[in-house]
Amino acid sequence: MKYISILGSTGSIGVNTLGIIQHYPDRFKVLGLAAGSNVDLLEEQCRRFKPAAVSLKHEAAARQLQDRLGRGGTKVYWGAEGLIKVAALDQVQLVVSAMVGIAGLMPTLAAIEAGKDIALANKEILVMAGELLMRKVAEAGVSLIPVDSEHSAIFQCLQRVNKQEVARLILTASGGPFAGWLSSRLAEVTPEQAPRHPTWKMGDKISVDSATLMNKGLEVIEAQWLFDMGVDRIGVLIHPQSIVHSMVELTDGSIIAQLGVADMRIPILYALSYPERLPNSLAALDLTKTAGLTFGHPDTERFPCLEYAYQSARVGGTRPAALNAANEVAVAAFLNSEIGFNDIAYIVKQTVDEHPPRKLSGIKQALTADAWARKRARSQLATVN
Amino acid sequence: MKYISILGSTGSIGVNTLGIIQHYPDRFKVLGLAAGSNVDLLEEQCRRFKPAAVSLKHEAAARQLQDRLGRGGTKVYWGAEGLIKVAALDQVQLVVSAMVGIAGLMPTLAAIEAGKDIALANKEILVMAGELLMRKVAEAGVSLIPVDSEHSAIFQCLQRVNKQEVARLILTASGGPFAGWLSSRLAEVTPEQAPRHPTWKMGDKISVDSATLMNKGLEVIEAQWLFDMGVDRIGVLIHPQSIVHSMVELTDGSIIAQLGVADMRIPILYALSYPERLPNSLAALDLTKTAGLTFGHPDTERFPCLEYAYQSARVGGTRPAALNAANEVAVAAFLNSEIGFNDIAYIVKQTVDEHPPRKLSGIKQALTADAWARKRARSQLATVN
Repeated sequence: MKYISILGSTGSIGVNTLGIIQHYPDRFKVLGLAAGSNVDLLEEQCRRFKPAAVSLKHEAAARQLQDRLGRGGTKVYWGAEGLIKVAALDQVQLVVSAMVGIAGLMPTLAAIEAGKDIALANKEILVMAGELLMRKVAEAGVSLIPVDSEHSAIFQCLQRVNKQEVARLILTASGGPFAGWLSSRLAEVTPEQAPRHPTWKMGDKISVDSATLMNKGLEVIEAQWLFDMGVDRIGVLIHPQSIVHSMVELTDGSIIAQLGVADMRIPILYALSYPERLPNSLAALDLTKTAGLTFGHPDTERFPCLEYAYQSARVGGTRPAALNAANEVAVAAFLNSEIGFNDIAYIVKQTVDEHPPRKLSGIKQALTADAWARKRARSQLATVN
Repeated sequence: MKYISILGSTGSIGVNTLGIIQHYPDRFKVLGLAAGSNVDLLEEQCRRFKPAAVSLKHEAAARQLQDRLGRGGTKVYWGAEGLIKVAALDQVQLVVSAMVGIAGLMPTLAAIEAGKDIALANKEILVMAGELLMRKVAEAGVSLIPVDSEHSAIFQCLQRVNKQEVARLILTASGGPFAGWLSSRLAEVTPEQAPRHPTWKMGDKISVDSATLMNKGLEVIEAQWLFDMGVDRIGVLIHPQSIVHSMVELTDGSIIAQLGVADMRIPILYALSYPERLPNSLAALDLTKTAGLTFGHPDTERFPCLEYAYQSARVGGTRPAALNAANEVAVAAFLNSEIGFNDIAYIVKQTVDEHPPRKLSGIKQALTADAWARKRARSQLATVN
């Protein structure tokens, strides 16, 4: 039996994770759940999984949930402390880190320091503080298993090879819903159009990031830390069919690839069961029913965010944290119809270029850079209106 | 330094192997070579690689070569004994088994018994006597590394995988030059047309086998033994682009695949350097330059040899040896314009159906079945003329 806490249990990854856990009652047991403010869903999850401890963002919501659940069963915490309680629960072996953005950083660090293995779905915290996180992971001797389908694919391919044999990692990207569009047409994209991802179902923010290719840029930085590989040995290929989830190119010219249907539950299950692999009832891939698998170079002229991510990674230090923060502000403004689609890249570039990169000697520098970039990006919003 | 003998040094695999060895003088040294009757090429190879011992099929040719080379250097042997000498040379660590057909069986067995690792390019001997060979491999504790691109791919994908995680092996097949042809058009295929394989350069016999899909059938049986997997867990997909060399489907629905350019030198190099992987100057795969990768089911109605191979494998014992022998006779007759393309499958089926399968308790049974099937297949030739 593996004991699990989920940070972000009411989000898309969290809900899918619980769905999987329910299918394997002899293998997995949920001990902790943390959510933002979705009291109703967390209540339902508590009744279904009977965790020892849960946490919500705000005290009022937490008190409300505790009242609904009654005393004596699940203990309800709140705030930053509550998150850390859930992340570091005594018996827990694996923490699924699936909160969106920076809020997941401290509880994930707490879990690592408490010796928990991490199933990581929160790529922003690796982008912001990958160097620090990976150092803590090494010190604690825990496993960090990626949940992103691309990184899960590479993680799986790397299980089969010696590190010295690896020439290059190749992340695949669907290209998003606007691949091939002219820049003038991109300028007219509405918030309603961007989230229509062609092959994966996902939230608004990540759908926009897919459309701008920033998602792939963040994944490049994520891969850099997860696999201890310079970004110039991490390539990106556009693969609209989303069947080859990613690849590892070896020094002898061979490529090892992982393929599957576009269903997040498969990499989630792998992260939960690692180092084992569990049979499941999910649809298997039938390659005779797929369209021809094609691969192309990303168009970084029309979708420059990918290139900005590479540039930030090469500069290093706090630069990627600034990139991520500026992007979050810009995407939120786009989704709020404050700026156009092409303005996202513009805001990111303006902000990052002005950011004086600092060495990342601790979490504080990452948080400071994040706050600086958010403020600066917000002030840039006015310039494009 | 790895010391190597090559059985079949003047054939396509042998020549490619020597070409690779020449590129890595600090890693590989040739100690033994065995050829059939190509004295001129073997002489040239002796002058280039200065092996300790070589062997030819016939005594006269061997004496002629020894005269040309002079005494004191390379020792020239002949016949079955000569083959075994080369296969079991004292210092040799790896024997490349690349003779075509049954003649490679005894020297390969001798090499295994002498504790040599085997790089296996001769699939017929696994088809004939896989059960026995694998038992000897296990007893001797040597490695058997496949050279066939498909099996090399699966071998690579299976590295460090728990066997219980494997749901199915998937061999890819180009489909040969006549995929999609009508049966009536197939009847008119000439020996000159069949060897034009669309993606791989190879010899006449194997090109015809690719066209009939018998090559894939033999590969299914080969995979059965190499990977200790029932044939009903080995699938075949037609993949005309020959980029995905084969795949392993895992119990969780993931597929791990090996991709590369269609160049035999890559799996040969891997087999030589295993368990290491060596950088090389061969063309790397550029997926952005390939056509869309497509996969389909084989057409076993028009190309029934694949199905015959599965049937023989299921019956087991000496049946696959009979299949292989009947096919060799039929392909030779086709190449000699004695029978039509569709008659190859007919001859194979008639012969195999009449073969009373025996248990394969020793090499003798395999050889007897082989001889029986050759004779019977030859007598069938007249019936289709």
